[in-house]
Amino acid sequence: MDKQLIETLKKNYDRYLKQMTDFLSIPSISSDSTHKADVRRAAEWLANDLKNGGLEHVQILETAGHPVVYADFLKAENKPTVLCYGHYDVQPIDPIDKWDTDPFNPIIKDNIIYGRGTSDDKGQVFMLAKMAETILLAKGDLPVNIKFCFEGEEEIGSAHLDEFVDDHLDLLKADVLLVSDTTMLSMDQPAVSYALRGLCGLEIELQGPKGDLHSGVYGGAVQNTLHAMVELLGTLHDNKGHVTVDGFYDQVAPLTDEERTTCEKLSDDEALKNELGVDTLYGEEGYPTVARIWSRPTLELNGLFGGFQGEGLKTVIPSTATAKITCRLVPNQDPALIGALLTKHLNEHLPSGVKLDVRLLDHAEPFSMPVNHPALQAAHNALEEAFKTKAILSRQGGSVPIVNTFHDKLGLAPILMGFGLDSENFHAPNEHFHLKNFDRGLHALIAFLYDLPKQMN
Amino acid sequence: MDKQLIETLKKNYDRYLKQMTDFLSIPSISSDSTHKADVRRAAEWLANDLKNGGLEHVQILETAGHPVVYADFLKAENKPTVLCYGHYDVQPIDPIDKWDTDPFNPIIKDNIIYGRGTSDDKGQVFMLAKMAETILLAKGDLPVNIKFCFEGEEEIGSAHLDEFVDDHLDLLKADVLLVSDTTMLSMDQPAVSYALRGLCGLEIELQGPKGDLHSGVYGGAVQNTLHAMVELLGTLHDNKGHVTVDGFYDQVAPLTDEERTTCEKLSDDEALKNELGVDTLYGEEGYPTVARIWSRPTLELNGLFGGFQGEGLKTVIPSTATAKITCRLVPNQDPALIGALLTKHLNEHLPSGVKLDVRLLDHAEPFSMPVNHPALQAAHNALEEAFKTKAILSRQGGSVPIVNTFHDKLGLAPILMGFGLDSENFHAPNEHFHLKNFDRGLHALIAFLYDLPKQMN
Repeated sequence: MDKQLIETLKKNYDRYLKQMTDFLSIPSISSDSTHKADVRRAAEWLANDLKNGGLEHVQILETAGHPVVYADFLKAENKPTVLCYGHYDVQPIDPIDKWDTDPFNPIIKDNIIYGRGTSDDKGQVFMLAKMAETILLAKGDLPVNIKFCFEGEEEIGSAHLDEFVDDHLDLLKADVLLVSDTTMLSMDQPAVSYALRGLCGLEIELQGPKGDLHSGVYGGAVQNTLHAMVELLGTLHDNKGHVTVDGFYDQVAPLTDEERTTCEKLSDDEALKNELGVDTLYGEEGYPTVARIWSRPTLELNGLFGGFQGEGLKTVIPSTATAKITCRLVPNQDPALIGALLTKHLNEHLPSGVKLDVRLLDHAEPFSMPVNHPALQAAHNALEEAFKTKAILSRQGGSVPIVNTFHDKLGLAPILMGFGLDSENFHAPNEHFHLKNFDRGLHALIAFLYDLPKQMN
Repeated sequence: MDKQLIETLKKNYDRYLKQMTDFLSIPSISSDSTHKADVRRAAEWLANDLKNGGLEHVQILETAGHPVVYADFLKAENKPTVLCYGHYDVQPIDPIDKWDTDPFNPIIKDNIIYGRGTSDDKGQVFMLAKMAETILLAKGDLPVNIKFCFEGEEEIGSAHLDEFVDDHLDLLKADVLLVSDTTMLSMDQPAVSYALRGLCGLEIELQGPKGDLHSGVYGGAVQNTLHAMVELLGTLHDNKGHVTVDGFYDQVAPLTDEERTTCEKLSDDEALKNELGVDTLYGEEGYPTVARIWSRPTLELNGLFGGFQGEGLKTVIPSTATAKITCRLVPNQDPALIGALLTKHLNEHLPSGVKLDVRLLDHAEPFSMPVNHPALQAAHNALEEAFKTKAILSRQGGSVPIVNTFHDKLGLAPILMGFGLDSENFHAPNEHFHLKNFDRGLHALIAFLYDLPKQMN
């Protein structure tokens, strides 16, 4: 980053922090209809800030829900176009009594800013806006073409984003998707992800006797629906943590030697045990911990219930039992095929005396891009410059549904360059964001825009 | 039953029905503190009715909860003393919208009386009162000595009965306990029970990571508490329905040939499948259905829960999982020993990555008396006289905790001569009672009092 940019950042830093505080003060809770006007107010604040920062074609675009804020600056002829995504809505603040400060009156203490949305994602949306503003202030133009698409519904499942993208394919056309809504590996270890796990979720219900039965009057005579559920779910894994659904691993891209080495290096089992409060970790035998999260599929029970849940005992044989299951999928697994294999397995292993209902719910394709993709290289270089350490080419254990949206509809390769930390309490009380990563992140984002055209040449 | 008794019954029948309706109209819901005065009102009604019926020493005896109604008639020198037990409290009426009639405005239709408490147990308590009143009206004295002990807390676990019995050992001293709070095998098949299953109940909780985890961020790295629960619970039965807890069956009294034959005769699997709405029955291999309910112990899951239970999916790895378990026990199993064996098994089979907490809850000894007990013979004769068919010497799959109380504290052999039917919706909306069994039951109760001194001579 040249002297002129560094000076501009320095000169405007206090103003930026003041503006960020203003933005964070707006309670843009998308899930709460009583905050509908606040969500719009945040959109308006953001649109206004982009306009003041020199962006063009600033618009608040309506959806059936909360609006999208769009802006662009498209004057870099023959240079790549970067579409920047983030969300200006935030999570609810319950339980409010667990907050040490007012969630919508941001406080800076020890170079950490506390408040709802600081790390997820208003703080990072604000960084994307200031990335452009800083360069425009210093240089009058940008090294790439840039578009902003900031949505107000990410915390409610991006309810209208698919529709919005479908309706604005031309407006959103770009070469690269830049997303600042993820986390770094640790305080001083930046990362850029090239793969995300997908998802296949389902709910299964077993129906035994037509009503709950008294276990004294009928116990021993009839299948207990919970016993059947335990037996059925017990067939899904072997005792080494492998999923035993026939064909489940058939399409899994094997770990390369390099990936395995990286995962081994990054697996700090002692630290993770300590973080989670467990004596031992557990998972698929034969893979280091990080590989089990990044590169191997899982089948997890997320919820299980049937029968009596109150205090003490109720001697009932339950009529029904329900389980919620999600598989995390990796390249090249197909969510629809996995759903079908799992349904087949469940039917084939159904214990006697119960009926099975399988309801397929959410699904998301796993995602990956070539590790030598030029945009990844630019991100890597930019992070190294800003953080003075090599970034790790990482994967993510979760899925980021909007990545699938933009990839599937616009063919965009996503650069997930986020500056939050897992420990920063997003979705929880006392959410916060380290300003040290605001500074270094802003540096990295600017450096990325400068390096990208070189790599994509 | 002689002519004089038959005439007395006939003459007083309409009055009896009118009185029963009055008694049933009092909403004596013991679990609901807003009905505390109603419970007392039911006790007063009953005490008054016993007094009017010629009983002596009628008292409302206080407990720390709802009172006990006591009465006696002790003028049959050198004859056995029968202690009659029943309860005048009733279950709540929720869900009220499922009732076709007002639960506390009893209606008679097609010789069936509808209302809360008709079969469980105010209707049957009323029969015990009228049994004595009818004989006293006809004869001026009774063929045995009789005591009544009607409690108001059976539906809340007889919370203060143990204490009450301890405090009134002399008052309650008797030779035989007569209980009318059970069911017949079917409309025209009376039964008298000589054995009850006992109970050993516990709750287990598994604790994995210290909080719920995101299945994308951590899935694959750490034990899923629900998987551990499924694995652990899966070790409790084999695939033939046997309990696999070491030593579980060691003390079980084997089925005699006669019992097996009776059970085979009484097992109507098609009817039971139809009643329960299942395609197939299930249970311990090698035993007919009725034997599995009456004479074999079980280990049942009554409740199981952990993780997300709402609509759709939440990709969480749950921190805790809980299971509620009860074992139905048969002679000569010891609930304390079974609890210890089960705790040992659970600890020995605990999957890695979770901690186990076992909380022992309710327990009840299994009960049995010799099938040739003279009081059983008297009951058998009385039922045959009233129902014109041989009564079946049966067992009960459930436990009747008050039987243990009276047996352990007063050494009483229980005669469980009940006239309800399993299909009469006790504890449910539209509870009802067949007046045909009111008539035949009252006949049987009177006949029992006459035959008992002959058998016990």
